[in-house]
Amino acid sequence: MSQRSNGPYQLIYWPKIPGRGEFIRLALEEAGADYTDTAHKEDGINTVLSLIDKNYEGDQSGPPPFAPPILKHGDLRISQTPNILLYLAPRLGLAPDGDAIYHVNSLALTALDGLSNEPHDTHHPIAVELYYEDQLEESKRRSESYRKNRLPKFLSYFERVLKPQAAQGRPWLYGETLTYADLVLFQGIDGLKFAFPRALSKLEKSGEYSNVFKLYETVKNRPRIKEYLASDRRQKYSMGIYRQYPELDDAE
Amino acid sequence: MSQRSNGPYQLIYWPKIPGRGEFIRLALEEAGADYTDTAHKEDGINTVLSLIDKNYEGDQSGPPPFAPPILKHGDLRISQTPNILLYLAPRLGLAPDGDAIYHVNSLALTALDGLSNEPHDTHHPIAVELYYEDQLEESKRRSESYRKNRLPKFLSYFERVLKPQAAQGRPWLYGETLTYADLVLFQGIDGLKFAFPRALSKLEKSGEYSNVFKLYETVKNRPRIKEYLASDRRQKYSMGIYRQYPELDDAE
Repeated sequence: MSQRSNGPYQLIYWPKIPGRGEFIRLALEEAGADYTDTAHKEDGINTVLSLIDKNYEGDQSGPPPFAPPILKHGDLRISQTPNILLYLAPRLGLAPDGDAIYHVNSLALTALDGLSNEPHDTHHPIAVELYYEDQLEESKRRSESYRKNRLPKFLSYFERVLKPQAAQGRPWLYGETLTYADLVLFQGIDGLKFAFPRALSKLEKSGEYSNVFKLYETVKNRPRIKEYLASDRRQKYSMGIYRQYPELDDAE
Repeated sequence: MSQRSNGPYQLIYWPKIPGRGEFIRLALEEAGADYTDTAHKEDGINTVLSLIDKNYEGDQSGPPPFAPPILKHGDLRISQTPNILLYLAPRLGLAPDGDAIYHVNSLALTALDGLSNEPHDTHHPIAVELYYEDQLEESKRRSESYRKNRLPKFLSYFERVLKPQAAQGRPWLYGETLTYADLVLFQGIDGLKFAFPRALSKLEKSGEYSNVFKLYETVKNRPRIKEYLASDRRQKYSMGIYRQYPELDDAE
């Protein structure tokens, strides 16, 4: 396998939250790739901190990263979640050949926007440097907008993408096989099920997004993903992107 | 030129705002590429609307786009700003060969996050579907956080990226020639100078980000960019990402 030629992949990410690192982990796990993960190393956090230190100016491996996740592979060190996925996908067999990768990339970027970046802002709508408690009322308003408007808009979009695929017997967002866009969608829905269990349950039961939730289950039951999710390598949701604040969810 | 083989590029974007379409336009303009732009066509908005219609399921050119900007080139239709830039850059000579494009892409993604997506949220921190006036107080708080914390953090980051480059006599974010990341940084700073003139003036005068503002001027004075900015093709800022609300800027 070509990935072996540069040795194992090294994921550099915060410990104790799945976070944005999870999108990278799922790609590596689905492919059965050989990788290391600072989240499971005793001094892993220091590796993260040294690379985002305000005095670090980068080296021959690449410019300084703005934030984790960071991937190191051989002499190359890159950052930004969709960028790392784009690098990994052809090497891991998670993207089609040729220009079709741009279709998959647009779907992955949209899923990251709508199912990961926007959910983060539901508990930090005013300022990332403030505590949640100091933007509680604003979080309630933003979460309501997200649950009632934005999330249904994104789910409707993905349902629309999946419909012609389903008509051809394909559960995937693009083409005939699983791509990294499917993994991003899975992780987004999984995180949202944790953060907004009541809202997600209602959306699922509505039946309006049946292909989206079917894809979620299909990914969840891929043999390697299933094994991964049951393993110690899968970290619990806590205070990352997806947080379970009942006051931000639908009423009972 | 390889771009000719598939005919001119077709940019599909809202009329009357530079918006996210501007990142694409600057790449096309810098390269002197042959392109059309729905912003300057009489029924251009209908092209946008038909492609994001809630019943449109895509066709052989690609899945339905979630939102503009959309690029059509030959038989390929793609969306998402960083995805379109990634497609165009190698064709327009705006990215290095090989894996170095992942460095440029991470810089472009970071600039889009910090200088375009976050500025948008300063005037819509609670809900994109609400009027600015209905989230005015929240916008003031978010803008203050952006001006005082987030923007300086991003500017410091890019200054740090530029410092070792400047030591080698290179004004660019990466490598020896201009890349699309430089164009994204230019447009971000340009939009912010419109939206927050007082804050940007102070940040520039502080001298802490001299390489960032030097790069801004360098891009602005590229012959094709200069000609473009002075032309009718460059639209005025209005009610897009970058809005000039004096109450959101620094005090006089």
